Order: sequence, then C-alpha cells, then structure tokens
Amino acid sequence: MKLDDMTQRCGEWLRGSGPEADIVMSSRIRLARNLADFPFIRRCTPVDRQAIVKAVDKRVLKDAARKDAGLDKILLIDVNKLERVDRQFLVERQLISRELSESEGAAAVAINESETFGLMINEEDHLRLQVMHSGFDLTGAWERISRIDDFLEAKLTYAFDDRLGFLTACPTNVGTGMRVSVMLHLPALVLTRQLEKVFRALQKISLAVRGLYGEGSQASGHFYQISNQITLGRSEEELIEQVSDVVPMIIEYERKAREFLIKESQKDLHDRVSRAYALLCGAQTISSEETMDLLSSVRMGVNLGLIHDLEIPVINKLFIHTQPAHLQKIRGGSLDRADRNIERAMYLRQNLRPDGNGSSKN
Amino acid sequence: MKLDDMTQRCGEWLRGSGPEADIVMSSRIRLARNLADFPFIRRCTPVDRQAIVKAVDKRVLKDAARKDAGLDKILLIDVNKLERVDRQFLVERQLISRELSESEGAAAVAINESETFGLMINEEDHLRLQVMHSGFDLTGAWERISRIDDFLEAKLTYAFDDRLGFLTACPTNVGTGMRVSVMLHLPALVLTRQLEKVFRALQKISLAVRGLYGEGSQASGHFYQISNQITLGRSEEELIEQVSDVVPMIIEYERKAREFLIKESQKDLHDRVSRAYALLCGAQTISSEETMDLLSSVRMGVNLGLIHDLEIPVINKLFIHTQPAHLQKIRGGSLDRADRNIERAMYLRQNLRPDGNGSSKN
Repeated sequence: MKLDDMTQRCGEWLRGSGPEADIVMSSRIRLARNLADFPFIRRCTPVDRQAIVKAVDKRVLKDAARKDAGLDKILLIDVNKLERVDRQFLVERQLISRELSESEGAAAVAINESETFGLMINEEDHLRLQVMHSGFDLTGAWERISRIDDFLEAKLTYAFDDRLGFLTACPTNVGTGMRVSVMLHLPALVLTRQLEKVFRALQKISLAVRGLYGEGSQASGHFYQISNQITLGRSEEELIEQVSDVVPMIIEYERKAREFLIKESQKDLHDRVSRAYALLCGAQTISSEETMDLLSSVRMGVNLGLIHDLEIPVINKLFIHTQPAHLQKIRGGSLDRADRNIERAMYLRQNLRPDGNGSSKN
Repeated sequence: MKLDDMTQRCGEWLRGSGPEADIVMSSRIRLARNLADFPFIRRCTPVDRQAIVKAVDKRVLKDAARKDAGLDKILLIDVNKLERVDRQFLVERQLISRELSESEGAAAVAINESETFGLMINEEDHLRLQVMHSGFDLTGAWERISRIDDFLEAKLTYAFDDRLGFLTACPTNVGTGMRVSVMLHLPALVLTRQLEKVFRALQKISLAVRGLYGEGSQASGHFYQISNQITLGRSEEELIEQVSDVVPMIIEYERKAREFLIKESQKDLHDRVSRAYALLCGAQTISSEETMDLLSSVRMGVNLGLIHDLEIPVINKLFIHTQPAHLQKIRGGSLDRADRNIERAMYLRQNLRPDGNGSSKN
C-alpha cells in the first residue's frame, strides 16, 4: 500500500451507507494521548520527536498482535518526506490535521487501508487516534477505537493522572482526551434558514459546530460537524451519549425541513437541484466553493428522489476528489488556480456523465 | 391554412439562413399606406373600418392576379374574432403590432404561408405591408414588397400627394411610408461593453435602435433592431442604402468582439455558453427573460463552434416558441405565469435534448 494508490480510491467513511447516511455523512471519535517517557510536543527536541515516531512504529505498528486489535494493513507515512501537495491530499481526506501538515519536526501518520483508522504522531499531542465510520455509528466507532487504545496502552506508557485522567498538551483535552463528532449534511435547514436556531441550542449544551475541515473552517457544501467541547469530568460513554442524543433531533429537524420544502415549494426545490446538476455537468471552469454548493444541492436531490441516475457514494467521492490537492494528484501535475478550475470542471463532467459526450467540445 | 396550423411551425424568416445569418436574424421592410376613399383611422366610423377590410379583401386578396404579384396562399385573420392569447401569439411572431392586437374596431391581418409577408389592415394606417426575410437581405425584401405594393396600388387608390408622397396618419411616416429594419444579434458587443458606443454613432445618423418587439420594447436576448427614422425627402433606395451601408460595419464590430473574446477569454466564453446550455436543459422552471438571455449565449456558442449538437434554426424557433402565448397555444390551455415557467422549462428540455431522458424526473 502506497500513498499514490489512494488517489483513485475513497475512504470507507465516504461509502454513504450506515444508519441515517442521507444526513449523517460520518461519525468520528478521536483520542488524544501522550507518552509518559517524553515531554509534551512543544518541549520536545528534534531527537525526542524522532524517538516518539520510532517507539510507536516498533512497539505498536510492527507488533504482530496488532492484527487482533483490528490494526490490519497499516501504512506509516513520514509527513516530513511528503511534498506539499501530498500533505494537503491527506488533509482533504481528513486523515491528518492542517496543523500536522504544516509541522516541521519529525511527524507521521499511520492509516489503515480502508482509511477508517488514523494515528497522527507528533501533532499537538504525541498521539492522536481517530476512527471514522460511515453514517451515524458512534457506538461502532467507540468499540473500535477502545480496542485500539487498549492495545496501544499495553505497548506504550501513557501520561495519565489518577485524578485528571489522560494528560494532554492543551487543557481543553485533559481527562478523556476524546472528541466525538458527527458530520451532518443540512442543506434544507440552510434553505429554510433554521440553522442558526439549531446551533444556538447546541451551544447552550456545550456542543461545538464546525465546517467540513475542522477548527476554524467554513461550512462548505452545507456540511456541519457537531462535537463535544468538554472532555473532563465525564466518562467517555457520557460524552458519546450527549452527542448521540442530540444528533437524532437535528436529523429530525433536517427531515422536517426537507418535507416542508417538498410540500411547499417542490417545483422550486426540483429546479434548484436540477440546475445544480446541470451546471456541474455543463461548466467548463468551476471553483471549489461553487462545486461544494452545487454538489450539496445534488446530494439532497438524490436523497429526495429528485435525481435518479446518480449514486450517493459518487457524490460523496466528488466532494473530496474535487479538492485542490486531489485534482493535482489525479492529474499528476502541479496546477495553478485557473487550471485547477478547468480540470475540476472536466473531472466533474467525466464522473457525472461518464457516457455522455457532453454538449460542447473539450 | 388556419391560425392553429401555425403553432408548431416557424416563420420562414427564422430559418437562420441568408447572408450573415449568424448576426443578422432578419431583414424587414414595411410600408404605411392609406386609401384615398376613407378618412384616416382615428376619424373612421366602425362602418368605415369594416368597409376598408372588405375592400382590401375583395379587390386585392380575392383577385386571381395576386399570385403573379407573389401573394400566394394568403390567410386573412379577423383580429376582432381572436382571443387574447391568439392576438398575443401573432405579436410574438412579429406578424402584427402590439397596437393592432389591442385594437377594438374592425381590424385584420393577411399573411402568407411562409409568414414572409404580412398586411395589417386598420392599424395606425389603413394598410401596413411588411416583408421579412431571413438574414441580411434588404434588397430581396425590397424587390418583393415593391411588387406587392405595385399590385395593391393597381387595385386600390392610395392617398398620395405629389409633393409629399404617401400620406400617413402620423407625420413621421409621410413620404415613403417606409421603415427599413434589420434585427441584429449582438451578444459579444454586449459582453465587451461596446454597444453604447455603436448606438451613439447610429443615433447621430438618425437611425433608431429598438428591442426584439419594436417600439418601446426592451432589448432581450441581445437582439437589436436598427431602422431608419426619416421617411420624407429621400427615395426608398436611399433609405435602404443608409441601413445597408451601416449594417456591415456593425457586423464587423460584433465579429471583432467575438474574435477578441475567443482569443482573450476563450475558457470563460466557453464556460458561459456551456453553462447557459446546461441550464436551459436542466431548469425545471424558467422565466421568459432568463430563457432569452441563455438562448442568446447558446446561439453565439453555436456560431462560434463551441456547441456542436444544436442547429441555429432550432434556437431561433425557441426564442419565439418560449414566449407566453406560444407556450399556451402549444400546450393548448391558459396558463398563469408560474405554470408557464414550468411549461417553458419542459418545452426547452424536450426541444434541446429530444432523445435525452434528462437528469431528473418529469
């Protein structure tokens, strides 16, 4: 398994199945862990950083027993050796954070073949484990990551305090070190202008709302990531329960908004969806932002039965494959913004209407 | 030949052939004539108006010799007996003026099968003859209308003054009673913002610029009608020459603007054209104004070789067939604005992609 093999594939979490997959794109749990034998990252020497990567590789990734913990076919990627476009590629696939992609000391990420598991080494903490499942499946993700975490804990010595729990570089992660998040596709709540109301309610119960690419990112394509902000003073199960309890309510709001749109303005909705699809198939040059917005309308259209000749996994894939680094990897060369917009339009035409000759040349 | 037979057809002037047909949609000459035996229209009694229609019908349209003058297969339509939608239908086809469509006394229009010839009876003047040819063909139109005018003059007594020429209800038409006009499609001059400059030059030489539907109409679909304003003190040949001399210059400007766009921003132009085509094929509801604008881009795209699977006559037809009255005639029922917009979108899909099942239901 090599990085370049991933180009044409998709993470398993994009397969568009799993419970409530029409609205819940993915469920993700990440755990922040640190090794007791090393200072926190900001105080690490270059030698320390290298030693951490080595320790994890030798004690965890090369251990034969890892397969029993569900760590099959693992690829360890040395982030330092990656070109800029490859780092960005991993960010777009949600396998590493923007922070790790910009790191200068020794840093790595271990991922499995289906991309459901990721282990960042030397990000803000020594270890950041994540498990990402398609659809609304926090229970499955939790079972999986627990098993992996137990395996790692048996091989490494975690920095742990009996009173506080897991120790982390930033106090906001102390305790469980856990972030539970679900990525929701909420186009109807956007169209009916009800999103603000929902978000205010979420903030009151200390849940955070972010865009597709985590902290500080804009919500594009009408994707919203809901996650816990509190990590301390509650058990992992309680934190998962809090998110698990609120997500069905948001799903219900989104479904009601879709029903309302279908009932009150079916023609306008159908028109919006159909025009979005037409533009994606017809554009000769298109920005990433416009692509996300149009794909969002099309995704809703497929889920509402307004478009029949498209599958959700194709659309999910396009959200990621039309990102700048993916386009360049697929095309196999460096492209400036204008050329990317042209390449993106071509890629969309080829993937949305693979058998159609299109209406115009190129 | 009946009015309803015209619904699915097109005027011959829309066939998109003739000289410079990529830019010159049609060439039109109209002559205003009055009968010496009757007062001008505004002073006519209802009985006078009826007598005028009768006189023309009997002495001209029923005369066997009319065929030699090129007046074959003539349909005389009593405008008073038409429903509102049928009057509007004739306006959209450029066969009667808005003024005649709103008239209350006896009024009629005689048209030939190819719709190249029209004779309005009891509009502002007793008679308004028009000949409309496809492309840039004022010479052909003039030869044709001269012959018909000679034939009419032989059968009727025109109000004519030796010093002034033909007498008309409005002084702006006295003399030749002639309006020479060409309908130009100038999308590239619009896009490159050069139109104002051209129009100012035309005004200086007393040429008028109007939209697709004559006096006071907005230029939609980037169609502009250039015509003479002066009718007195010059011969018919001189008036035709003035328009004939200026049109090639405008054509040249438009061509240069198209070349500039192709050279300087081919991708943007292709994108605009391709998106317009996609929207026309994908919309589920669309206004008349948006349709005209998008069709205009598509028409230019076909002429510039950016779209390959469409013929100009199809586009020309759609400009007219997507107008409100045409839609209602084609559908065979009265439709409000919202329903027309839905019907228009359906009609466009069916005519632009007749074999495609489309991307979405309906």
